[in-house]
Amino acid sequence: MSFNSFGKVLKFTTFGESHGPSIGCVIDGVPPNLIIDEKIIQPYLDRRKPGTSKFVTQRREDDRVKILSGVFEGKSTGTPIAMIIDNIDHRSKDYTEIKKKFRPGHADYTYNKKYGIRDFRGGGRSSARETAMRVAAGAIADIILKSYFKDFQIQGCVKQIGPHKIEKNQINWEFSKTNPLFCPNKQVLKVWEDFLEKVRKKGSSAGAIIQLKASGIPPGIGSPIYSKLDSEIASGLMSINAVKGVEIGSGFNLVDIDGAKSSDEINIDENNNVTFKSNHSGGILGGISSGQDIEVSFVVKPTSSILTPKESVDTDGNNIKVQTKGRHDPCVGIRAVPVGEAMLSFTLADLYLAHKAQVGTIN
Amino acid sequence: MSFNSFGKVLKFTTFGESHGPSIGCVIDGVPPNLIIDEKIIQPYLDRRKPGTSKFVTQRREDDRVKILSGVFEGKSTGTPIAMIIDNIDHRSKDYTEIKKKFRPGHADYTYNKKYGIRDFRGGGRSSARETAMRVAAGAIADIILKSYFKDFQIQGCVKQIGPHKIEKNQINWEFSKTNPLFCPNKQVLKVWEDFLEKVRKKGSSAGAIIQLKASGIPPGIGSPIYSKLDSEIASGLMSINAVKGVEIGSGFNLVDIDGAKSSDEINIDENNNVTFKSNHSGGILGGISSGQDIEVSFVVKPTSSILTPKESVDTDGNNIKVQTKGRHDPCVGIRAVPVGEAMLSFTLADLYLAHKAQVGTIN
Amino acid sequence: MSFNSFGKVLKFTTFGESHGPSIGCVIDGVPPNLIIDEKIIQPYLDRRKPGTSKFVTQRREDDRVKILSGVFEGKSTGTPIAMIIDNIDHRSKDYTEIKKKFRPGHADYTYNKKYGIRDFRGGGRSSARETAMRVAAGAIADIILKSYFKDFQIQGCVKQIGPHKIEKNQINWEFSKTNPLFCPNKQVLKVWEDFLEKVRKKGSSAGAIIQLKASGIPPGIGSPIYSKLDSEIASGLMSINAVKGVEIGSGFNLVDIDGAKSSDEINIDENNNVTFKSNHSGGILGGISSGQDIEVSFVVKPTSSILTPKESVDTDGNNIKVQTKGRHDPCVGIRAVPVGEAMLSFTLADLYLAHKAQVGTIN
Amino acid sequence: MSFNSFGKVLKFTTFGESHGPSIGCVIDGVPPNLIIDEKIIQPYLDRRKPGTSKFVTQRREDDRVKILSGVFEGKSTGTPIAMIIDNIDHRSKDYTEIKKKFRPGHADYTYNKKYGIRDFRGGGRSSARETAMRVAAGAIADIILKSYFKDFQIQGCVKQIGPHKIEKNQINWEFSKTNPLFCPNKQVLKVWEDFLEKVRKKGSSAGAIIQLKASGIPPGIGSPIYSKLDSEIASGLMSINAVKGVEIGSGFNLVDIDGAKSSDEINIDENNNVTFKSNHSGGILGGISSGQDIEVSFVVKPTSSILTPKESVDTDGNNIKVQTKGRHDPCVGIRAVPVGEAMLSFTLADLYLAHKAQVGTIN
Repeated sequence: MSFNSFGKVLKFTTFGESHGPSIGCVIDGVPPNLIIDEKIIQPYLDRRKPGTSKFVTQRREDDRVKILSGVFEGKSTGTPIAMIIDNIDHRSKDYTEIKKKFRPGHADYTYNKKYGIRDFRGGGRSSARETAMRVAAGAIADIILKSYFKDFQIQGCVKQIGPHKIEKNQINWEFSKTNPLFCPNKQVLKVWEDFLEKVRKKGSSAGAIIQLKASGIPPGIGSPIYSKLDSEIASGLMSINAVKGVEIGSGFNLVDIDGAKSSDEINIDENNNVTFKSNHSGGILGGISSGQDIEVSFVVKPTSSILTPKESVDTDGNNIKVQTKGRHDPCVGIRAVPVGEAMLSFTLADLYLAHKAQVGTIN
Repeated sequence: MSFNSFGKVLKFTTFGESHGPSIGCVIDGVPPNLIIDEKIIQPYLDRRKPGTSKFVTQRREDDRVKILSGVFEGKSTGTPIAMIIDNIDHRSKDYTEIKKKFRPGHADYTYNKKYGIRDFRGGGRSSARETAMRVAAGAIADIILKSYFKDFQIQGCVKQIGPHKIEKNQINWEFSKTNPLFCPNKQVLKVWEDFLEKVRKKGSSAGAIIQLKASGIPPGIGSPIYSKLDSEIASGLMSINAVKGVEIGSGFNLVDIDGAKSSDEINIDENNNVTFKSNHSGGILGGISSGQDIEVSFVVKPTSSILTPKESVDTDGNNIKVQTKGRHDPCVGIRAVPVGEAMLSFTLADLYLAHKAQVGTIN
Repeated sequence: MSFNSFGKVLKFTTFGESHGPSIGCVIDGVPPNLIIDEKIIQPYLDRRKPGTSKFVTQRREDDRVKILSGVFEGKSTGTPIAMIIDNIDHRSKDYTEIKKKFRPGHADYTYNKKYGIRDFRGGGRSSARETAMRVAAGAIADIILKSYFKDFQIQGCVKQIGPHKIEKNQINWEFSKTNPLFCPNKQVLKVWEDFLEKVRKKGSSAGAIIQLKASGIPPGIGSPIYSKLDSEIASGLMSINAVKGVEIGSGFNLVDIDGAKSSDEINIDENNNVTFKSNHSGGILGGISSGQDIEVSFVVKPTSSILTPKESVDTDGNNIKVQTKGRHDPCVGIRAVPVGEAMLSFTLADLYLAHKAQVGTIN
Repeated sequence: MSFNSFGKVLKFTTFGESHGPSIGCVIDGVPPNLIIDEKIIQPYLDRRKPGTSKFVTQRREDDRVKILSGVFEGKSTGTPIAMIIDNIDHRSKDYTEIKKKFRPGHADYTYNKKYGIRDFRGGGRSSARETAMRVAAGAIADIILKSYFKDFQIQGCVKQIGPHKIEKNQINWEFSKTNPLFCPNKQVLKVWEDFLEKVRKKGSSAGAIIQLKASGIPPGIGSPIYSKLDSEIASGLMSINAVKGVEIGSGFNLVDIDGAKSSDEINIDENNNVTFKSNHSGGILGGISSGQDIEVSFVVKPTSSILTPKESVDTDGNNIKVQTKGRHDPCVGIRAVPVGEAMLSFTLADLYLAHKAQVGTIN
């Protein structure tokens, strides 16, 4: 058991609080002889970094990653890779006023009830700042997967903000890489910007749904019954701050698809390749990858820290009002895109190594 | 790492195939001195048992559970509790014709790709028959939780079948216990029966959404960051056969709830108790129970084995048609209710014991 | 965490009490497509079986193993392999008189203090009967290792009983397979028989030291720092009933070997093979196999249940005398030989699969 | 599975190489509200620090520990505690000449065979420098145990160096705290100093046996069958660099103690306390603490890096001579004392928390 670790064979452990000296992670079980470098990892972190647009937090952190171990002369050695990011812009004073207040929708109340103590500065351990280390770990997972599967690629985008949804066939993955909202549709981008501007101005926040796609993954990854690929993905994504739902493939829509259509029929094509006529299962059958794209989505609730005052209680048991004054994200879901990608990538790398242990490599 | 185990501190391991001699489980970490008896566990299994209505499989199994260890003179001893159910009605002949065929939507293809071998009789290990042992493990979890929390209760019902949905305020939990469809609304029951009868007659199947509610759970359960209560619940439910989505609280609906309303405001009531004005978070904040009801739902896709022929391939790489002749469930989601309850209960018991380890008991 | 499981990637879980209906184990992570059969496993159990000579317990158990899952048409499928042995000759009446008595040197007192309850029949869970399942698991490990390393072989013998010791250069491995005492020296066998006969007649018991040797293991097995091959071996052997010491290679003798001689010097021989001039390290350097024979020994204390009365206390806190009347082993260390072999084999198989996960196969 | 973590419920993970920028650890599962401070931890590290006498390495490291997370306003918060020590005096140039050479008795050859790469500077990950972080983790374990058991105390000393042994009844624990050799006997100290001076001058090294004693531990700690207290202790101690044997209580001597004397008889004394007439079992029965002192010893082989040239091979497969020029310990076993104490303490704390999870607190 390790409360702060993720993975079965490949495992990362994170540590650190929002306003402590540093946050960090240790990745154990990384194959040796992979080319690993801070310069390869940094761009992953830059995608998650605060301040990329006015719709995410304005905290200034350059999130500069340092590798402390496990890499020698530019290559992994098979020993644990520790990485660290120093916290720079921690204006802890912003938070002294909430020292005794529980912000509704946040972990303040439950951390206090559980541990009898909490680091109230910026949410302490419960801050989304911890997710930076997931992104660093995900970068390593990408390096691992690419070393085995040359066509491997993970993509993520936002597919819904507030009421404004993008259908699957309207997703333009390339476009999503060109804007800080990870919006995969040019028409919708403008709608979202207008919507978020209104949300921001009225001191509120909005939810989002993120879509992930992993391609170039062969059949065979996932270890039934309790390390199924889908259950590990769900565990990883649901552990991200503010996530309240996870779907594989067609997800909840499957309730209203007739059994004659819901299963993905299989064919051998002219090139003798196995193809599927649909992908309701999101590329996972019986907890094992089928060779189709892995398709997953998850919902991020609206940021709970907003400028609008809310009813709450304090540590002395009084009814109070809480209003957030610190910096926050009008739509925290946006920055969850690289975090979701990282968790999906890490899960795939982990379960591929598990498969290698029990069965062997997949060509 | 253990592929066939679930839980961190309290752990169950299952084994067995659909058509092998027996299925079973071992539960490790059970507190001593609890009153445990086959007679207490059997009723849980009877709720999941095949043949309770014409909308579930007609396989005849009385699912009689036997305790092999860990209980002495009617009490748990703290040593592992093994339980076993012998398979009786395994008409393996029904399956010889699919020996070389991959049923679409099933795990046949992926098990074969992963392991290079599969027990094709009734799905082998990938059969939902395995879930009987989860129910047995969940019964033990219930006993554990009730020994600590006198008001603890888990309830589960079906809240949607095909297009026919029951809103939260229309759920009558007591009514759900009176019918084999676990339908929580008298009016809707008739609608569902008609709908399922049509589905059954045309040789097809339907999806379902299950709602779970755990009450009587104190604040403090769940171990951030990677053993959060919600991520462990998601992992457990997503590991159930045919499940493709999990939501906590308002789940995906949170995308379109304004930040001013989405967080559950807190009050101290006249009796000095902490109360919440809503429960969008499903009773979990920051991965820790808040003291509200734990509310979770999950979707079960339509049964893939149906009488309608489907396109597929065989082990020799030929395009073929597959038609299921064996017994099957027109709506396999119905029998997922007690399985979902069991997974939720086990997750709560496990994370409560984890809390006891690190922090202590909760009163 | 699982109290009753052993292994990291390949894992076995045991259950069952001395006088319950059955004992059993579940092995998770076994590679698929290995030829596995009860007939292959049974001979391993026969070596540990009671009643092979008058110096071990006379309990009559034929220890007939049944495979319940994970094997299909004679091959492993990659799903968990459960095995079970029914208890037959459990004369529980022999034990009612010790219901309230704590036998010194046994686990009676500590189980009672820990759990507040104990199955007193034959030691319950603390009985050495549990080790039968380790032997069954070790047989599977042997099958796994032999599938990868054609020259792999594990041998075990007794090298000391009471004061009568056999030096390393006097060990004749072949001879040790010809007698029920696993004695590797013809001259010493007679000495041991006479010694044990005296011990048995005076109603006492004797300790033993067991020597294990695994050959045909390539360099590279073992995962530093906390899954080092030697620390996993020590953990496995020390978990065997009555074991109180474990040595790798020259073990405690290394305290008095000069540093100029203690490290095993290395050479390239005429065939271009790496050879070592000695094996003080027991084939393990830095926690990783070096390619030399793995050499390990462990001590088993004298059986605590003897006919001679001993001072003790009862559950009511009275000073009493306890005298064992049940069957027992005059030298329980003898039957520890196949158990030690099994633990060593399982540890090697487990850490080899761990190596495969992180690095790859070894040729 | 995590190769670089130790513990079941309370877990530490270490990272770092001898000549990398830093070494560190993360401790997960620490109870909240304990007073923790760098000033409390530093003295533990000072006991292990290089340069305390001429019989240990002269590398200059002040081993200044920094806490990066998990402590807020002087108290543990229940979140992971990360600690780090920067490496200062890493004269990597000393090692360039062994870049292509395998030092016999070291992990050079096996790391290279396993990973196909190695950080050759000072042994890289296989350096005993890693043990500093174990000592830091052990300090936290001490704080935890003392918060539960007011009389808890761990003591360690050296009981044999080369041929010069101290019998159990000659151990003076207080004296062992007054000298840098952790020698528990004034007469023997002089003998050891003379012996080690000779060893040092001839450019060789000596082995040592360390004795550990934990007192103030109640009965009930240890979780059979595979998390027995003794097997976890053995695993922890055997994972320390250069350790090749572990004994519990009378250990290997038990082979030649008659069964009538080997079990520790029990009495109720005049104060109604349970007492034992001897402690051959080292305070552990059936894998569970009995309430007696926990007594354990382990052997550390002579330092393999010595000034005397040794035969070996290089990475190109040539026969060579290797002579160590870097700083080294004439008797590395001396500095293993605080490391052994730390591993024992951590094991006890871990298994006590495991007991709390399953059963409850012990008074």
